[in-house]
Amino acid sequence: MNAVPNPRRFSFVGGDRGSWRVTRIVPYIGELLPDVARIDIVNGAVPAEGGWVLRGVTSNERYATRPEKTELAAKQVGLGRPTATHAALIPIRKNAAWWALTQDERRAIFEDKSRHVKTGLQYLPAVARRLHHCRDLETTEPFDFITLFDFAERDAAAFEQLLGELRATEEWKYVDREVDVRMVRDGA
Amino acid sequence: MNAVPNPRRFSFVGGDRGSWRVTRIVPYIGELLPDVARIDIVNGAVPAEGGWVLRGVTSNERYATRPEKTELAAKQVGLGRPTATHAALIPIRKNAAWWALTQDERRAIFEDKSRHVKTGLQYLPAVARRLHHCRDLETTEPFDFITLFDFAERDAAAFEQLLGELRATEEWKYVDREVDVRMVRDGA
Repeated sequence: MNAVPNPRRFSFVGGDRGSWRVTRIVPYIGELLPDVARIDIVNGAVPAEGGWVLRGVTSNERYATRPEKTELAAKQVGLGRPTATHAALIPIRKNAAWWALTQDERRAIFEDKSRHVKTGLQYLPAVARRLHHCRDLETTEPFDFITLFDFAERDAAAFEQLLGELRATEEWKYVDREVDVRMVRDGA
Repeated sequence: MNAVPNPRRFSFVGGDRGSWRVTRIVPYIGELLPDVARIDIVNGAVPAEGGWVLRGVTSNERYATRPEKTELAAKQVGLGRPTATHAALIPIRKNAAWWALTQDERRAIFEDKSRHVKTGLQYLPAVARRLHHCRDLETTEPFDFITLFDFAERDAAAFEQLLGELRATEEWKYVDREVDVRMVRDGA
């Protein structure tokens, strides 16, 4: 049986290639990622060659309830709108205490206390997002999740507000590494 | 950054090697797996060479609540007890309808309707188990989950009963492939 790539796999390659020009890389919590000029976002695997590569796989939602999923589906938009010339790549890692929690405890912190879904809904459809999981790959990855956001320049302030609201939550007390990579699309 | 293997990764290699002698491989739902003489269970990656390889990663529990986890932790035992000379390797795949459900809907089917945890608890500590996730690896795997069970010969009938109870549940209506591999340890 030959290995067939998972079609939900994405690679985020920091280096000199790709259509996203990096404007800044800031460590928000913990160790930074080395500076690079560009990010190449590839739906698939890439050979490791200089720079850095983050890997993740999109998957089923882990916390949303049916009413939340219905509301999200009605409002959310896909990445890559022509107007979405600005993007943020935000990899995070959660600590051991988070992963020792049970599903009901994680859900209570994620939504009942931190209103993660409700907060995100307020910024739809301005801010599009795609979540990638990295904790259960066959390789040890430096982060547990990678979220890619894109938005129009006029929505950049709204995006900062969304990020500020999420970072102020109880859920974020469990984040032990977070890097904030900002990018602008070529031609923008 | 070099790729560091995930320490929670396991490979199940069907072929001519390993300390588990296969006694039968039966397809329970859907396509079978080819017959092999032995299964080698490796905590790590293996090169693909003849036979077949199933891969999975152990992870955090997705459904158990705190009271359930506490009860499981008090009763469960690890794989590999000297008396556990018999084993079953049961890979399953769930259908698209399952993965389209939300977390609360999956939990309701998994436990409220199917009593997955409560049923398993009745067979502890006789039957040890370890669950591996395969759906979100970087390769497309033929199954979503692989469960490895081991038990003493005297508990073989209890194991059949456990399996029968689980397969009769509402949850199992979402299983669209299941293969049942039975093994006996060398020297047993």
